[in-house]
Amino acid sequence: MTEEQIVPADIEVGVVGIGLMGSSIIVSLLVSGHQVKAIAPIPEDFEQAEARIAGLLDICAQADLLKYDIAYYTSRLEISMDYSTLANCHLVLECVIEDIDIKTTVYHAITDVVGHDAIIASNTSAIPISTLQQLVAIPGRFLGVHYAEPAFATRFMEITCGADTDEAKANWVFRLAHHWGKEPTLLRKDIKGFITNRLMYAVYREIFHLMDEGRASMDDADKVFRYDVGSWITLMGIFRRMDFTGVGDQIEIFKKTFPGLSNTDEVPEVMQKIVEENGRGIQNLQGLYAYSPEEAKKWEETFSQFNTEIFNLAAQYPYGEAPVNACAVNKVSSR
Amino acid sequence: MTEEQIVPADIEVGVVGIGLMGSSIIVSLLVSGHQVKAIAPIPEDFEQAEARIAGLLDICAQADLLKYDIAYYTSRLEISMDYSTLANCHLVLECVIEDIDIKTTVYHAITDVVGHDAIIASNTSAIPISTLQQLVAIPGRFLGVHYAEPAFATRFMEITCGADTDEAKANWVFRLAHHWGKEPTLLRKDIKGFITNRLMYAVYREIFHLMDEGRASMDDADKVFRYDVGSWITLMGIFRRMDFTGVGDQIEIFKKTFPGLSNTDEVPEVMQKIVEENGRGIQNLQGLYAYSPEEAKKWEETFSQFNTEIFNLAAQYPYGEAPVNACAVNKVSSR
Repeated sequence: MTEEQIVPADIEVGVVGIGLMGSSIIVSLLVSGHQVKAIAPIPEDFEQAEARIAGLLDICAQADLLKYDIAYYTSRLEISMDYSTLANCHLVLECVIEDIDIKTTVYHAITDVVGHDAIIASNTSAIPISTLQQLVAIPGRFLGVHYAEPAFATRFMEITCGADTDEAKANWVFRLAHHWGKEPTLLRKDIKGFITNRLMYAVYREIFHLMDEGRASMDDADKVFRYDVGSWITLMGIFRRMDFTGVGDQIEIFKKTFPGLSNTDEVPEVMQKIVEENGRGIQNLQGLYAYSPEEAKKWEETFSQFNTEIFNLAAQYPYGEAPVNACAVNKVSSR
Repeated sequence: MTEEQIVPADIEVGVVGIGLMGSSIIVSLLVSGHQVKAIAPIPEDFEQAEARIAGLLDICAQADLLKYDIAYYTSRLEISMDYSTLANCHLVLECVIEDIDIKTTVYHAITDVVGHDAIIASNTSAIPISTLQQLVAIPGRFLGVHYAEPAFATRFMEITCGADTDEAKANWVFRLAHHWGKEPTLLRKDIKGFITNRLMYAVYREIFHLMDEGRASMDDADKVFRYDVGSWITLMGIFRRMDFTGVGDQIEIFKKTFPGLSNTDEVPEVMQKIVEENGRGIQNLQGLYAYSPEEAKKWEETFSQFNTEIFNLAAQYPYGEAPVNACAVNKVSSR
């Protein structure tokens, strides 16, 4: 764990929680060369884990993401319900559900077995890292490592420090994440709700407000994002886009638009209703839209296919080797 | 102009304003089969228009968007500074700068020459349609038709009614827009700031707030959008994404996140400063980032290339012929 060199093959990583996200993270780590110890706290997950991970490795093989054959990667994975297999891990990623009591139990089980210098990270996107790290013995070794789905085929990662996180440990994870093929953000101050959520929930607040007023429909909003925002976001992000369309004109629009934006704290009624009716989305075929079992399955497959294609498309417009120098400057200056 | 059939080749369209956006709109209309009468209110634009449009047609040819050779399309375009060439237009699109006095002058010049049943539309993204339509004789024929850049290679379009817009005319434009290869939204009630802007400005308000607090950098925000949001937005839009990730969990995040979001009406200081320094973005090489002339040119080219590729990628995941029936249902139910 020196600053000089990071060799994923020499770094053992633990993952606790083998749900959809956990499986995807395990595959990402295997593909990056790590030995992985996976812990399934739930018997149901333990039973399904092997098949689920094999399925994801198969997707990776089809997308040409694998250097070796699938058997090589599975040979480097141990799935267990016994936390003691984590004993030699340098880093343990927790990706269980967003329940602080469950997370507390999990952290105790982890710290009981790992070394004092092992880093512990949560994939949470809901609970502040500063809060979670107080549940862990030696809080300085705790931080947030938030993946985007599917973890093995997305570049995005939020690395987030809590108030007490040891900066050297965060820097090490930041460097390691580049070996995972990530373009991580490194937030040295905790953001409540994390950065993607914060920004997207600003959108959600506004669109529900427009829908309440009968000014826009779900379909309108989805078109806006699919065809307008989608046509530039992967290339430019938001700030370069402002420069591109003319940053000078923006200020007038700020002045006119801000006072009209929703400032509500209320959960939108339509969301409240769905949750009361136990709607969970495509998982139980009932969400903002309705799904047949075939449709739900098709969406999973389609997303996986699309994701591979946008991943490949984005690779033609890399940040580090950007088409113009300004990108590289930006990359350096923000750190 | 019957409800039965729309044949773009028989419909003459006028465009007033031949800046970057106007040129792009003209090319979109030509490619869709229209005869186009273009008016340049500014001598400088008049001089540059022919070359600019030829350049864009060239891009279309390279992207394989043209049915005929370039000469065919230019033969169907008349560029002039004389409004009387608009006399026979069925539809006139105004795309001059966001200045209400200039727009007033332009509308008078248009209504002086066109027939009473000609539809007049503004590409504005800043001034409410209900306000603009009061500047036009026979306000019922006025509406908003807002393009995304580049107009000839994007599916997004906001069609917006003002309070007095004749719904039959809006429906006709909505149908016509499908002949332009658009997936238009049709807002029957004016939204101040329009829908894309409203939603994106909610993001801008929040990110500037996070930057002010030292919690995130421009680079972080751009990564969030390039690699996270960008990895699903073109496929799913925002609502299906909620279903996909689990709509049931969202409500807890709403409750935790909304109260922390920025509610400010203030223009961010960093934007104020750029405008005071006359920064306009890549146009004058000075914006949120700095650009060399070569970099600015490269960004134009790169955007055009990326846009073609994401357009083609999105075409594999169409809305109407969606991979699951839910999409089609959604499409019907929202109208």
